[in-house]
Formats: sequence, C-alpha cells, structure tokens
Amino acid sequence: MPNYQARVLVNLRPSVLDPAGEAARSAANRLGVTGITKLRIGKSVELQIEAADEIEARQRLELLSDRLLANPVIEDWTLELEPCSSTS
Amino acid sequence: MPNYQARVLVNLRPSVLDPAGEAARSAANRLGVTGITKLRIGKSVELQIEAADEIEARQRLELLSDRLLANPVIEDWTLELEPCSSTS
Repeated sequence: MPNYQARVLVNLRPSVLDPAGEAARSAANRLGVTGITKLRIGKSVELQIEAADEIEARQRLELLSDRLLANPVIEDWTLELEPCSSTS
Repeated sequence: MPNYQARVLVNLRPSVLDPAGEAARSAANRLGVTGITKLRIGKSVELQIEAADEIEARQRLELLSDRLLANPVIEDWTLELEPCSSTS
C-alpha cells in the first residue's frame, strides 16, 4: 500500500491572542534580535500514512486534523500531502 | 524597510522520543483513522521581520532560532523566508 508523507500546520486564528508568541517576541528583543513585527507560535505535525490512494489519505488526515490535531474553535490548520519515496 | 515573512519549523531530533506524538497516534487509531505509521509533533513559528535585506533577515532569524526558538540539544529547525508583499 502506498505511503504518504504529510505535514499539518496548526495555527491560532488571527483573532485569538497568543501570549506565548508575545513573550517570545519580547525575549527576541532582549536577545538583540530587532525588527520582529509579528511572532505567533503554532504546531507542526509530521505524519506518514498508508492508504490506497492520495484521496483516501487526504480524507483521513482532514478528519484527524479537524477532530484531534486542531481545536477548530481557536485554531486553523493546513494540510500538505505528498507521496513518500520510502516504502513500508 | 522591507518586510519579510518567515516560518521556523522546530522538530524533535529523530533520536528523541516523542510521547505526545505517540499519544496522538494512539488516539487517531481509537478515532478510526488507521494507517498512520509515524506522527511527531513539533512547533511552527510564523514571523514577520523588518530588515535591510534578505541576508540580514536570515542572519537574525538564524540567531533567534538557535538561541530562543529551538533547544539544539534535542531539536532541529528549518527556516523558510520570503519577501512580504504587505508594507509596514
């Protein structure tokens, strides 16, 4: 069965405050890294999935992102999917 | 001054265990999403930075990633940088 490599990026919705990101931005200034006008911290989930075809892999990962990886009330997610060269 | 859009992906090194990722993989199975052979959770940091040119922006963000965003003992990071269309 083909193997697919995926990445799900989970980010806070623009309307949601990100205190951790703000703290990192302040810390960057103290470190001497200036000019940062925006800094928001999200999650990056790297997956490999076995599925019959790319459509099925995408469907499963969309379900997973909606139900498990992201909280749709406060987070958006994007899915990047590509066939994996390594077989399993 | 030009504005650059950047993303820093921070992931655990392959040799480091990821209990949160394992828990998510088990939860995916219970949710009925089968076929996931790998799942690792990292951070995605979205930034905007003002700098004189792309080289300077890259240097500052590399310093930031090494010193603040990632723990180089257990984490790797990759930087994606591109000019930002919106001016500030």
